[in-house]
Amino acid sequence: MSRGEMERIVLVRHIVGAPSPEDFRIERLPIPELADGQFLARNHFVSCDPGTRSRLSPGASYAPALQPGAPVDGFSVGTVLESRNPRFAVGDAVALTGWATHVVSNGRGYAVKLANLGVPEQLWIGLLGVPGMTAWFGLKRVAQLAAGDRVLVTSAAGPVGATAGQLARLWGASEVVGIAGGAEKCAWLTDVAGFDRAIDYKAADFEAQFADAAAAGYDVMFDNVGNAMIDHALPVMKLRGRIVVSGQVADYNTPNDQLPGVRNTREFIARRLRMEGLVVFDDLPGFAAAQAELAALIKAGTIKYREEIFEGLASLPAAFCGLFTGASFGRRVVRV
Amino acid sequence: MSRGEMERIVLVRHIVGAPSPEDFRIERLPIPELADGQFLARNHFVSCDPGTRSRLSPGASYAPALQPGAPVDGFSVGTVLESRNPRFAVGDAVALTGWATHVVSNGRGYAVKLANLGVPEQLWIGLLGVPGMTAWFGLKRVAQLAAGDRVLVTSAAGPVGATAGQLARLWGASEVVGIAGGAEKCAWLTDVAGFDRAIDYKAADFEAQFADAAAAGYDVMFDNVGNAMIDHALPVMKLRGRIVVSGQVADYNTPNDQLPGVRNTREFIARRLRMEGLVVFDDLPGFAAAQAELAALIKAGTIKYREEIFEGLASLPAAFCGLFTGASFGRRVVRV
Repeated sequence: MSRGEMERIVLVRHIVGAPSPEDFRIERLPIPELADGQFLARNHFVSCDPGTRSRLSPGASYAPALQPGAPVDGFSVGTVLESRNPRFAVGDAVALTGWATHVVSNGRGYAVKLANLGVPEQLWIGLLGVPGMTAWFGLKRVAQLAAGDRVLVTSAAGPVGATAGQLARLWGASEVVGIAGGAEKCAWLTDVAGFDRAIDYKAADFEAQFADAAAAGYDVMFDNVGNAMIDHALPVMKLRGRIVVSGQVADYNTPNDQLPGVRNTREFIARRLRMEGLVVFDDLPGFAAAQAELAALIKAGTIKYREEIFEGLASLPAAFCGLFTGASFGRRVVRV
Repeated sequence: MSRGEMERIVLVRHIVGAPSPEDFRIERLPIPELADGQFLARNHFVSCDPGTRSRLSPGASYAPALQPGAPVDGFSVGTVLESRNPRFAVGDAVALTGWATHVVSNGRGYAVKLANLGVPEQLWIGLLGVPGMTAWFGLKRVAQLAAGDRVLVTSAAGPVGATAGQLARLWGASEVVGIAGGAEKCAWLTDVAGFDRAIDYKAADFEAQFADAAAAGYDVMFDNVGNAMIDHALPVMKLRGRIVVSGQVADYNTPNDQLPGVRNTREFIARRLRMEGLVVFDDLPGFAAAQAELAALIKAGTIKYREEIFEGLASLPAAFCGLFTGASFGRRVVRV
């Protein structure tokens, strides 16, 4: 008996440089029968994460590179339709991976039953998912944010940066400065998200704005951009400053040998700096508690967010490619 | 009444690029009368530290830049000749700062009465001084060396590197690999200092040697060289690897905008790396205990060292300049 069809997005070829929608195609296939231990979910939303780019190059990153023809496994959120797995029941809300209308999962890897926290479900692939958890644990565990810290956040209007800046403020930072592209994003940072100051990297006087804001130095740099920004910030870090390497959206599309170099490393000795990278799944045991706290802050209106919702799986490739052009503003998700 | 004369080394001009002996001159002056709270010491040895270079450029580093005409304050060891300071008595062995035959000190800054640990006195500006303490606290506090770690040490035949490699071995590293220049230094590392393996960066097959030794990856990189070496090592670090930025002997002479860049920073995320710089005086409260332990290891022959002793203050400028050409081999000190 036919159980209908599903759609998923497949990588056409390894990507060198900026991704384009033609690097992906949509594949239609019959929904597979479930084996013992598996369940089937219908996705409602799938996510656009810059970090997914790192798996689409020929070389491996923190996760193995995808091969051409393979389905792309960005994050998703949906509901269980059928189950032969005792841990997942029909009707359960779940977060999974798969740029697809449907996902068959064996319950291993990233397959999480969602608590009922009373927030819109797409937040589970947004502030309660990888971006929000990266902000949370990047500040708490990696930066070890302390009261009174001055904090610089780059790509600050993105979901990681905006959440990091607001959490820093909430957790006692004396001042939070965000860097973003364009007047609209900068206005949102200061007027809505409560950043103390926003710097427009596209403005003609960016260097002057940067220098002025940096005069008092930074205890924490929360970087989502890459080498050029880190190099720029090293000389304005304070003694024992911490640089969180959270993401590298400006560098994901560039081959290693063409990346800008970080030159100002003598500041590491002079200022006793510490720079550390994170992959947020290392903090998985702490997710549930952090998600409950963060959901309460969101419902109270303390933490603001902005989202861009695209309609239909076919809109995903272009939505994803826009992450690297500066076009995105807030959390980008696709309703499928 | 004349109290005789002293000699000291003075900076002639700010140094850009490699230092040369002409950047320094010897100044003769009468030994000053002591004010209340001061004491006079006769230096026996003064030290050649690559880190001194960072204060001789026009710009400031972790210590303010010296001005032309100022005496150079490298580290020294000697005996108190006269004292109007209640904490320092005639005959006390002391470590001070001053590239000079005599030092007048008020007992503040770096002025340390030396414990009687039964080791040659010049070790107090060597393994028991900045180089040895940098190795000790760099491994313990910064790298947080754990049993079973694979460790890479650069500039490994220098006093910091050689001590770091031996301490790592002693503290449970599974394997210690050193990089040094030339067959003689490499032979000393494996045959005398007990490194598991030494790699000659001057050898034609350096890249092949490096790749072969790096196949199992490194948990700790203890770097004394600078950006190029760090960039080279990032892709062979293991998950949660630590890079200690201990010194940058290859970079001290290069203006910032001409430094090689660290490009392979995506490894920070992929491998959750942590890179941290140190200035060992932050660990001053722990020096006495570490020095006692290290002295015992030296006397027992467990920790080996090599030294090059130059004669006379006039030999200091050339001895110092040789630190940056690869000519030095072991701890370089000058008997004054």
